[in-house]
Amino acid sequence: MKDVFEDVQGRPDAREIALDAAGVKGLAHPFKLDTGPSGLQPVLARLAMSCALPASVKGTHMSRFIEAAGALEAPLSPSSMVLLARDVQKRLAADKVSVEAGFTFVLPREAPATKARGFVDYRGAFACVLSARATRITSRVEVPVTSLCPCSKAISDYGAHNQRGIITIEVVHDGSVALEELVTLAESSGSSPVYSILKRPDERLVTMRAYETPMFVEDMVRAVAVRLRDDRRVTSANVSAVNDESIHNHQAFAELRF
Amino acid sequence: MKDVFEDVQGRPDAREIALDAAGVKGLAHPFKLDTGPSGLQPVLARLAMSCALPASVKGTHMSRFIEAAGALEAPLSPSSMVLLARDVQKRLAADKVSVEAGFTFVLPREAPATKARGFVDYRGAFACVLSARATRITSRVEVPVTSLCPCSKAISDYGAHNQRGIITIEVVHDGSVALEELVTLAESSGSSPVYSILKRPDERLVTMRAYETPMFVEDMVRAVAVRLRDDRRVTSANVSAVNDESIHNHQAFAELRF
Amino acid sequence: MKDVFEDVQGRPDAREIALDAAGVKGLAHPFKLDTGPSGLQPVLARLAMSCALPASVKGTHMSRFIEAAGALEAPLSPSSMVLLARDVQKRLAADKVSVEAGFTFVLPREAPATKARGFVDYRGAFACVLSARATRITSRVEVPVTSLCPCSKAISDYGAHNQRGIITIEVVHDGSVALEELVTLAESSGSSPVYSILKRPDERLVTMRAYETPMFVEDMVRAVAVRLRDDRRVTSANVSAVNDESIHNHQAFAELRF
Amino acid sequence: MKDVFEDVQGRPDAREIALDAAGVKGLAHPFKLDTGPSGLQPVLARLAMSCALPASVKGTHMSRFIEAAGALEAPLSPSSMVLLARDVQKRLAADKVSVEAGFTFVLPREAPATKARGFVDYRGAFACVLSARATRITSRVEVPVTSLCPCSKAISDYGAHNQRGIITIEVVHDGSVALEELVTLAESSGSSPVYSILKRPDERLVTMRAYETPMFVEDMVRAVAVRLRDDRRVTSANVSAVNDESIHNHQAFAELRF
Repeated sequence: MKDVFEDVQGRPDAREIALDAAGVKGLAHPFKLDTGPSGLQPVLARLAMSCALPASVKGTHMSRFIEAAGALEAPLSPSSMVLLARDVQKRLAADKVSVEAGFTFVLPREAPATKARGFVDYRGAFACVLSARATRITSRVEVPVTSLCPCSKAISDYGAHNQRGIITIEVVHDGSVALEELVTLAESSGSSPVYSILKRPDERLVTMRAYETPMFVEDMVRAVAVRLRDDRRVTSANVSAVNDESIHNHQAFAELRF
Repeated sequence: MKDVFEDVQGRPDAREIALDAAGVKGLAHPFKLDTGPSGLQPVLARLAMSCALPASVKGTHMSRFIEAAGALEAPLSPSSMVLLARDVQKRLAADKVSVEAGFTFVLPREAPATKARGFVDYRGAFACVLSARATRITSRVEVPVTSLCPCSKAISDYGAHNQRGIITIEVVHDGSVALEELVTLAESSGSSPVYSILKRPDERLVTMRAYETPMFVEDMVRAVAVRLRDDRRVTSANVSAVNDESIHNHQAFAELRF
Repeated sequence: MKDVFEDVQGRPDAREIALDAAGVKGLAHPFKLDTGPSGLQPVLARLAMSCALPASVKGTHMSRFIEAAGALEAPLSPSSMVLLARDVQKRLAADKVSVEAGFTFVLPREAPATKARGFVDYRGAFACVLSARATRITSRVEVPVTSLCPCSKAISDYGAHNQRGIITIEVVHDGSVALEELVTLAESSGSSPVYSILKRPDERLVTMRAYETPMFVEDMVRAVAVRLRDDRRVTSANVSAVNDESIHNHQAFAELRF
Repeated sequence: MKDVFEDVQGRPDAREIALDAAGVKGLAHPFKLDTGPSGLQPVLARLAMSCALPASVKGTHMSRFIEAAGALEAPLSPSSMVLLARDVQKRLAADKVSVEAGFTFVLPREAPATKARGFVDYRGAFACVLSARATRITSRVEVPVTSLCPCSKAISDYGAHNQRGIITIEVVHDGSVALEELVTLAESSGSSPVYSILKRPDERLVTMRAYETPMFVEDMVRAVAVRLRDDRRVTSANVSAVNDESIHNHQAFAELRF
């Protein structure tokens, strides 16, 4: 019988190549999510967790990442990602650790005229990178919006092509930026937010508001950036907008990093 | 040393359960594709091939499907799918055989005003099911179109929400229906076809045409059906339309089988 | 100003084509999910809801589906899907209604030797089709398993290729079959269940158990079927197994309908 | 009638925010692909093309990107991406340009014992970033391999879990590195390459070879890196390996940038 206690991962490796990351990804784990003022909601997150691997060691101990995920008691938030990263660092005696949690979440949404209630869903993510030098916290949201083409409106006697677009905001911050702030920022930077329930008076309002507020992908990115660049809590940001063009079978996009 | 010639698949199985299908899927294979009048184009198809398995046999011989794919010399078309199915039937001594090829293909597209040329891409598929009783040939296309909401137009003083929609047409036919016929049928059943290159005069034309041609998903399905139901080459059909609603984060859809 | 109360959807349609389905899909809605003995868990479901549309009517009223989803108070289960379908039927005065909810859920999982605890995630779905003649309830799970190839084992002096496979079980039933029953059935029909945390004693056990329990995709489907076919609660079933073959870049699959 | 010649994109923008990128993505275009020694093959590429946008301009001219794609006559290769980027730069009078082409391609593959012939498919991409300072050429391949776990083998009396893994190699280089070189490098860095057709003598050989060549994801990344780091044509590289673990429902991964 073979030795079940042999530590194969701990064997030395002669190639003298340190790795930036070794770990697990796609791990499903249920959490409470802190989105901000709306409070906590349950989510099923997909986790990616890794640590840097010294040149002298053959492999990492994958099961310890999963134990760390199971041990996290705080709701998912920028600050609990730091806790998770520190726990991974301790369990694996690692220099550099990276943890990321991606999830789909919802926020309640009232129709603009009738106030009929439903939910809009968003993709979100938190990440924390921990090294000897620094702790880096990142939040990201992908927010669907309506975008209506300024060019199409300007050159056509009536109508204007419009479509669903996705505004993605990723910020490195001090841990105090709530997901809902980023959602609100994105939703006020398109031609209109999208809705769950729209009765006829709502649909009329949304249609006309979008026509009155034409936005290129370039405009949407700038509309986000102009309000984000003065936020002292934000160290750096990556803002993009992608339109599933209604008149093409490809996408239009714009991007800004600062 | 073990016996490399032992036929494990051919072992008897005592559970007395015949299977409807055993085979391979997701197999990539390069072919020429016959789309119709535009002629042949290269495609990388994904193949699914299976045969019914008698209760008395443990497993099928998966490698023979791949050999059949490699032996097909004719371009991909409804009729060559019959050849492929018959070859599989022979190689596996099977009663019932099913083969399917899915692929992305392109057709040249001129802008409506400037005639600037580009390509539009579509998903397509051919299938053939061969049994003792019958040979069944199926063709399917998924065609992007612009759809503009009749309700939004009717109740708004200006503008109308529109978006990219996908019209899917699947027909069981006598083998003589070309993919391009189905594409043309779908593209003339939305508010407007989509385009590759659109210069300003083209964008104006497309915007105004869509505004003049409002279509619900229900309208698009009926517009296809009304012309398909009298086609004697078609035995049965499944027509659907799905809109990536520009004012919602969900889809609207309609479907008809006949 | 246009008439916001004009019922465009209610306009007559002259084409005399009734539709099988018109509705919404991809709608995100948070629910409690009833998986069986383990109790309730929160999920974010994606809903598809539709009703048949008479030939005389132009379009359906999409917002009413979303209102029905919001009004469902019971946890997601086969029986609450019937309630949802009936509510849709009433709100839309429809003859035939179809509702479906798809979701990712988790179940707790202990490692086989160390009993270390984690979660395994599964895709699941409930559906209900309501017509004048009948109420049809469907449950579906997609369950990851380890599968080890009997042929590879039989013809090789050591080792055997194995991989992650997915067993999908879809049953039409009387409403009393719990999701967890289907998960348990699938997990006991492969070479081994998959796990979240595996420490070395667990990995040894799982590796050797899989080697001792070789299964073709055909075997896995039959192993499910042999126990499902005598279940009087089940009217009909569709069982399939798909292997992401570790020695190929395509999948092997088998399927049975009964 | 509105003025179809109004240049809405060219309007000044007062927000004083320059964008890193504005352009199109997801554009399908057929090309010949140069993979290296095996010669040219047809592919349907998805293109992403963008240019930096000065703060003074409202929007980019999206149709010009598509015209550039249509004007490229050379086969897709690292060097033709430079031509495409330069053409975009000229058509849009842009300072900084980025072009990327992603595609699925195949290479012929012989079974190791019987020499039966089929194809293996891979994802690949070329990119070129052009700025005042530099021209940066990137090539990427995603290569499926068999990986067999060294720990599982070492601690189990028989068997060892294995699975399909993906090795991704992305290199910034001088334009002379062929895709096929990267494929060969990746395929010789796992426990075994994957195959299309495998008859029994082939399956025996592949099974035993994988058992004799156990590799962690960490090992696979190092095996690639050790041969890539001395290649003078390569400026920088990003190498990763991801295993679809056969005993888990998540992935193990490792990554190295140098």
